Amino acid sequence: MLTDGVRLTDHHCHGVHTGNLDRRGFERLLGEGAHGSFDSAIGLAVRRWCAPALDLPAHVSPDVYLRHRARLGAREVAARLLRATGVTRWYLDTGIGGGTADFAALVDGEVREVIRLEEVAERVVAQVGAVSGVYERIEAELRARAAHAVGLKTIVAYRCGLDFPVRDHPPTSFAPEHRLTDPHVLGWLVGLGARIGAEFGLPLQFHTGFGDPDLRLRHSDPLLLTDFLRRTAGTGLSVMLLHCWPFHRHAAYLAHVFDHVHMDLGLTIPYVGQRAGAVLAETLELAPFRALCYSSDGYGLPELHYLGALLWRRGLGKLIDEWIADDAITTADAEVLVNAIAHGNAERVYRARFEHPVG
Amino acid sequence: MLTDGVRLTDHHCHGVHTGNLDRRGFERLLGEGAHGSFDSAIGLAVRRWCAPALDLPAHVSPDVYLRHRARLGAREVAARLLRATGVTRWYLDTGIGGGTADFAALVDGEVREVIRLEEVAERVVAQVGAVSGVYERIEAELRARAAHAVGLKTIVAYRCGLDFPVRDHPPTSFAPEHRLTDPHVLGWLVGLGARIGAEFGLPLQFHTGFGDPDLRLRHSDPLLLTDFLRRTAGTGLSVMLLHCWPFHRHAAYLAHVFDHVHMDLGLTIPYVGQRAGAVLAETLELAPFRALCYSSDGYGLPELHYLGALLWRRGLGKLIDEWIADDAITTADAEVLVNAIAHGNAERVYRARFEHPVG
Amino acid sequence: MLTDGVRLTDHHCHGVHTGNLDRRGFERLLGEGAHGSFDSAIGLAVRRWCAPALDLPAHVSPDVYLRHRARLGAREVAARLLRATGVTRWYLDTGIGGGTADFAALVDGEVREVIRLEEVAERVVAQVGAVSGVYERIEAELRARAAHAVGLKTIVAYRCGLDFPVRDHPPTSFAPEHRLTDPHVLGWLVGLGARIGAEFGLPLQFHTGFGDPDLRLRHSDPLLLTDFLRRTAGTGLSVMLLHCWPFHRHAAYLAHVFDHVHMDLGLTIPYVGQRAGAVLAETLELAPFRALCYSSDGYGLPELHYLGALLWRRGLGKLIDEWIADDAITTADAEVLVNAIAHGNAERVYRARFEHPVG
Repeated sequence: MLTDGVRLTDHHCHGVHTGNLDRRGFERLLGEGAHGSFDSAIGLAVRRWCAPALDLPAHVSPDVYLRHRARLGAREVAARLLRATGVTRWYLDTGIGGGTADFAALVDGEVREVIRLEEVAERVVAQVGAVSGVYERIEAELRARAAHAVGLKTIVAYRCGLDFPVRDHPPTSFAPEHRLTDPHVLGWLVGLGARIGAEFGLPLQFHTGFGDPDLRLRHSDPLLLTDFLRRTAGTGLSVMLLHCWPFHRHAAYLAHVFDHVHMDLGLTIPYVGQRAGAVLAETLELAPFRALCYSSDGYGLPELHYLGALLWRRGLGKLIDEWIADDAITTADAEVLVNAIAHGNAERVYRARFEHPVG
Repeated sequence: MLTDGVRLTDHHCHGVHTGNLDRRGFERLLGEGAHGSFDSAIGLAVRRWCAPALDLPAHVSPDVYLRHRARLGAREVAARLLRATGVTRWYLDTGIGGGTADFAALVDGEVREVIRLEEVAERVVAQVGAVSGVYERIEAELRARAAHAVGLKTIVAYRCGLDFPVRDHPPTSFAPEHRLTDPHVLGWLVGLGARIGAEFGLPLQFHTGFGDPDLRLRHSDPLLLTDFLRRTAGTGLSVMLLHCWPFHRHAAYLAHVFDHVHMDLGLTIPYVGQRAGAVLAETLELAPFRALCYSSDGYGLPELHYLGALLWRRGLGKLIDEWIADDAITTADAEVLVNAIAHGNAERVYRARFEHPVG
Repeated sequence: MLTDGVRLTDHHCHGVHTGNLDRRGFERLLGEGAHGSFDSAIGLAVRRWCAPALDLPAHVSPDVYLRHRARLGAREVAARLLRATGVTRWYLDTGIGGGTADFAALVDGEVREVIRLEEVAERVVAQVGAVSGVYERIEAELRARAAHAVGLKTIVAYRCGLDFPVRDHPPTSFAPEHRLTDPHVLGWLVGLGARIGAEFGLPLQFHTGFGDPDLRLRHSDPLLLTDFLRRTAGTGLSVMLLHCWPFHRHAAYLAHVFDHVHMDLGLTIPYVGQRAGAVLAETLELAPFRALCYSSDGYGLPELHYLGALLWRRGLGKLIDEWIADDAITTADAEVLVNAIAHGNAERVYRARFEHPVG
């Protein structure tokens, strides 16, 4: 398949757990609920694909897999699986799952940081409290951190939903929240992120679509960002819609009508297993080819990073093979398309960052 | 196919019409609108599959089918089609379509009752009026009926939508409604159902997704149940999301993140005909294998019960065959999966009922 | 394929640009955003299918295609592509893209007018201002124009969304808007259109689903029309839901439960390219066969009219072939189905117009 050897830029993922995990701990990280389970599309995919990558037969039982995994040790497993992804650039959301140094020790390739707006703001609040001047302190800290980052990330979808009020100025009062949930504070924070992103050339990533049960899925529909996207069009900001399922067609529409909007399927690909190609096909109905990027959203288990890459290769590869067989695209154009999604689009969007002198 | 001989538990269906039906009467029951039609996916499926089950050639014209049906007599048709489903356990929502005794006379296998909260409550209101103490009477009646049931069902989606207010106490005033539509009364009633369900081990079934035009489809999106599901997590209640189309991916997400949530495609399977496998594939992207159950939602026409079973077998069977051919799952694991969806999951969830002593 | 030679009624399209277009101008018309792009499903389809229709090799580069297009001249290109569609009846929305005379000069077949409610109303406002009696003037003008039209169209989805207030009487005050956006004025205008449509036998077309970024996609979900559809059921009005993607399953549900509702995929088919059949398959899950019509929504580029027809033929043709191969439908029934969607349903719905004497 055309996707077999293509190098990937995983433009949104997290670090991995390198301690030992029992079955309960492993399954917890294999789902977005309180407990995941091997009895699911992603569970089948772990047994089918990760087992052979660790020199086990395909489809071994969960217990055999986990015993072997424990025997190898979590660091060895992580190093093997992460190196088998074919990813050469990793952009790590350090808001959860550890920092870049730990991750860099496990992988080949470049590791850069994506900073999470809420994490930075909450750290400042924890340090200084809800004092007068806290907004200025948050802005100063974000600017300082942005100087060393490749991107910004917001999880406002988890906090008040994507229908946050878009506002240029912070509210006059600041409730002393150590976990930000006030829509007006969050709306200001995201607006600040958008301005800093435009200024520094840092794309702003939004969690959209499914995630853990802290989320109200209805409030993570990327269409709720329509007004925000209208306001940020032409400002120089690039927006990355992450994950998107089951709203991936909605995200594709936004990427179609707004030039500064990009998207990926992130978390979706490892989770839907065998269905990765079908979800990609729905996305490509309207998403411009310049807009789709690759990420795994891998977190905790290196199996997620590995399955993200493997299932993306298989799903997109098979889809493109069908298009070629049906004479809908030439092989040469298909190669261009595959390279764009695999790494070219991300390189173009994030490269802007390197062309901005940072104060 | 692996699904060919597997026995089914139809955990949500209704009784059938055993009088004669003219074409207009038959088509009315073949659609959710004021008039259904043979000119639809389900109409093609009746001619393709029900005709041979009644010893006619496949694809006979609607009029030939209906003449033959009248000649056999509706009871004979029902007995033949229902017995050909391979269903060994039927859980009958007696809120519409008749009771368990009539149905048991037509089928092999066990027939148990699912009681409809609104039907029980409205019967009490019709008897006693909106008097002081009506809430207590409703609760007493529900408890008495629950002692003999395997499950509870609510059609709150049809009345005020799934965004009902979750409340523990009834409103102080009770408008004398013979058809309950007050969101506060309904919110209390569903909450009461949840408590009784947890106490007696009775799963609580929700109509979600498409249905007749009494429904506002937007208000039957199961995601509107998110807060209710958060509140009932860990209480011992099991929730069954029925039908779900076109929100089956939303339901799959809820089943993924909440351990006490299960789902089926119910009504969807007979209606979408040839597309049953495609809708199942979308559902299995995220639904844990422990969460998916089988039902036909058959009502009025035994053709619906029959097509539910047949199209489910064909749709899931073909999908699983593709997974096996693609080496995504072993045949042994596929058999476990098929048995779980066909009857195992329902047996586990509803079995709790038999383990609760009832006062 | 069964769809190969079938004649089409394109019941909703627009005129074409007959001046020369540079690449930027062409791509702008190839997308719904500020800029379209050849790097998209529709761009691949232009190169694959329109190039050979203009005697170029399939898959030529965009620049070669555009140079050849300029050499032929836009009128010649339009005449060739429009005549190659197999469309014999064109119903032209003259609210944008020019009038019927210009279009008739380019095509074979009948060209009739669909009048756009907002365009007619805004023309009156521009002429007379927001004077007392403006509502009566709008109604008189609509009635005069309706006498010569085959249908009515509303773009209320673009103005205040499909959740407009349904009202029989105009608001007492009329803000002097030259571009109508007041939901109460628009609600009255749509209601007026519904009454005139019922009276004259003119179907009322609604833009629903995706379109340019003036739209809030969430507000163009056809389910928002549920109350309007309940009110107009049985009044004699026929409603046509246009485009619908990504809400085509929602539209199919409405067509299932309301006898006076019809739908097409319009704009969707040329845009999704290779995926036309997949979107049609999702639609036919619940849409009654009497309800689905064909349109291209072609606007500006005759490539859109051509791709609409060609991709519809290929997509539906392949889908129906699969159904026949799977013995889900007989060839004879499939022919009836294809003819109904291609032209029969539109002829039946719009024919009512010719049976109404117009005062």
